Amino acid sequence: MDSPSSSAPRFAPVILAGGSGTRFWPRSRQARAKQVLALDGERTMIQKTIDRLHLLASPKDVWVITNGLLEETIAQQLPEVPRENILSEPAARNTAPACALAAFLLEPKAPDTVIGVFPSDHVISDVERFAEVIRAGIELAASGEKIIVLGVPATRPETGYGYIEQGEVVREGSVPVRRVRRFTEKPNHRLAQEFLAAGNYAWNGGIFLWTARTLANAIREHRPAMAPLLEKIAAAHGTPEFDQVFAQLYPQCENISIDYAVLEPRSAKGEVKSEIYCLPADFCWNDIGCWGSLHEHLTEGTMENKIDATDPVHCTIDAERNYVYAPGKVVALVGVNDLVVVDTGDCLLITARERSQDVGKVVSELKKCGREGLV
Amino acid sequence: MDSPSSSAPRFAPVILAGGSGTRFWPRSRQARAKQVLALDGERTMIQKTIDRLHLLASPKDVWVITNGLLEETIAQQLPEVPRENILSEPAARNTAPACALAAFLLEPKAPDTVIGVFPSDHVISDVERFAEVIRAGIELAASGEKIIVLGVPATRPETGYGYIEQGEVVREGSVPVRRVRRFTEKPNHRLAQEFLAAGNYAWNGGIFLWTARTLANAIREHRPAMAPLLEKIAAAHGTPEFDQVFAQLYPQCENISIDYAVLEPRSAKGEVKSEIYCLPADFCWNDIGCWGSLHEHLTEGTMENKIDATDPVHCTIDAERNYVYAPGKVVALVGVNDLVVVDTGDCLLITARERSQDVGKVVSELKKCGREGLV
Repeated sequence: MDSPSSSAPRFAPVILAGGSGTRFWPRSRQARAKQVLALDGERTMIQKTIDRLHLLASPKDVWVITNGLLEETIAQQLPEVPRENILSEPAARNTAPACALAAFLLEPKAPDTVIGVFPSDHVISDVERFAEVIRAGIELAASGEKIIVLGVPATRPETGYGYIEQGEVVREGSVPVRRVRRFTEKPNHRLAQEFLAAGNYAWNGGIFLWTARTLANAIREHRPAMAPLLEKIAAAHGTPEFDQVFAQLYPQCENISIDYAVLEPRSAKGEVKSEIYCLPADFCWNDIGCWGSLHEHLTEGTMENKIDATDPVHCTIDAERNYVYAPGKVVALVGVNDLVVVDTGDCLLITARERSQDVGKVVSELKKCGREGLV
Repeated sequence: MDSPSSSAPRFAPVILAGGSGTRFWPRSRQARAKQVLALDGERTMIQKTIDRLHLLASPKDVWVITNGLLEETIAQQLPEVPRENILSEPAARNTAPACALAAFLLEPKAPDTVIGVFPSDHVISDVERFAEVIRAGIELAASGEKIIVLGVPATRPETGYGYIEQGEVVREGSVPVRRVRRFTEKPNHRLAQEFLAAGNYAWNGGIFLWTARTLANAIREHRPAMAPLLEKIAAAHGTPEFDQVFAQLYPQCENISIDYAVLEPRSAKGEVKSEIYCLPADFCWNDIGCWGSLHEHLTEGTMENKIDATDPVHCTIDAERNYVYAPGKVVALVGVNDLVVVDTGDCLLITARERSQDVGKVVSELKKCGREGLV
């Protein structure tokens, strides 16, 4: 390992906020995606994301990559982030170009800056532990050409996540460090069960740490077509030509996730040379992927009735395990169980809780009916 | 039988419209009861009630007995009915005083007028057959001291209705006439099954026909305390003292249904002397007692999804046999069956269809919580 720098490493969080999140329809819409909604309290998901990072970085060093539909809303929700640090992708290109753009922006002036990539729509309940783990990750990432990933302890054979196979422990301590052997995206159920049984697999929580130089070099090595495009965009940042260059070159970038673009090829090189390490994301992480999992989160797993209706009066008769969002309404449930009900001004969704991951299909149906304005 | 009059009998329909109908909450409220709602079309239940009677009576001869909360709404909905014919009970006293009041109002000037008592919140689909049966009933009622009741063909062992035991046929024809042997209110399930199996029991549909004199005399005979109170109220009608007399005396009347007050004692006198006759209410009658039975009526028994939402676009995925009322909203149902959903501006009800008769309990609960304004 390289010698650590004497001062604390510079840290630049990059928040990925371009997702559309159709599974929270009708609350979420194209221009009001999950990350800008307050699903579990007063602050929105992206506000909570940046709140967690306040312990680790100045808001001036935060970058947000989003899209044109969400840019203004995010700028309003994050007034502490410099406006020029909020970038709208001219076209959705998955996570690799977004992460890499941050690296190419920072590399020329501060190549040793540790970039932390963070999703903008996850829930993390233990914020102090989060800060402790990320601090350890920053330190490790700063000490040479390392890639740090965070592995969420797997608790069920989930087939919707990526899995990280972990190798030997290279450092014990309050934040143990393990080598990464391999990444596997969305396994089938049988394989997911094997991973869970094996014990050394963690879910990929989408949080990565590396220096700007390490990430830029990794892109040059594994995605040689993408690198010069992003270098040109980065060089134009702060100039009058930026918007035009961004709009022209970014759509030419490959549409690929950072996992596929960099992590998988790196890990495929073998255990020792890969220099990819995993830290435990043991801070009560939850990606809140659907209304059902929001209900689970809000009731701390009890799944009792949760009625989010402003008016404190409601009436339940022989009704259990329901989630209702109906601001300003008096809600009455009679003889119904395990439902999700979401009432916005213009739409009303009723779904069985166990079917709430299919809500995205409603959005597809409405688009087919020509009701783009409702999605 | 008495000799029939040479000209057509005068006919005065009395529409009973004092009910509160909590089972259609949240659409129905104290000041917006079922009878003033348009549950199955453009016209309200009471408007449809009077529409049916247009073939049989002039609106000038129609009387409406309601309560103070509904009076103005009803007057607006029935502009063709003279304002002085719409009376608000100063206190709810069930159906006997209301029916009897009409008799005492009409008896002094036109004792041979046939009074027809009609509920204001039932659905009758075959209006022509209704007119044919009522015409036959008017003729029969006019021919002496007879009481005519209408018997709905019983199709299930319903325990929520009153039953009419029918005796011999006294007249064949397109509207056959049978004697009434006995009335039985709300039998238990076993008894209701026996009635259904016996074949000569019909449901009491709450429609009665008799002359003003016959009803007034029946009240004098069976409810001697009530008769002088109602005679005084009737005598004051049209005078400046009416409101005061009505408010003072009406609450002193016994709180009793016309069935218990007159029909049961009469029928108990024996088959021949009772002079109570039953005509078939075979005109597709439905009392639409709860959201579930409205759904059944609206889908003509198929129970397919019925979404009453103004906006024609909605989305159902693996969802069957649901009723949704949500004006102005786009509705999406995913993986839910047999639900009733009613979305008003201020309240949202979700109930299993088979539990919709328990919606009245919600109203009771809200009253207990001090939310009278919502019921």
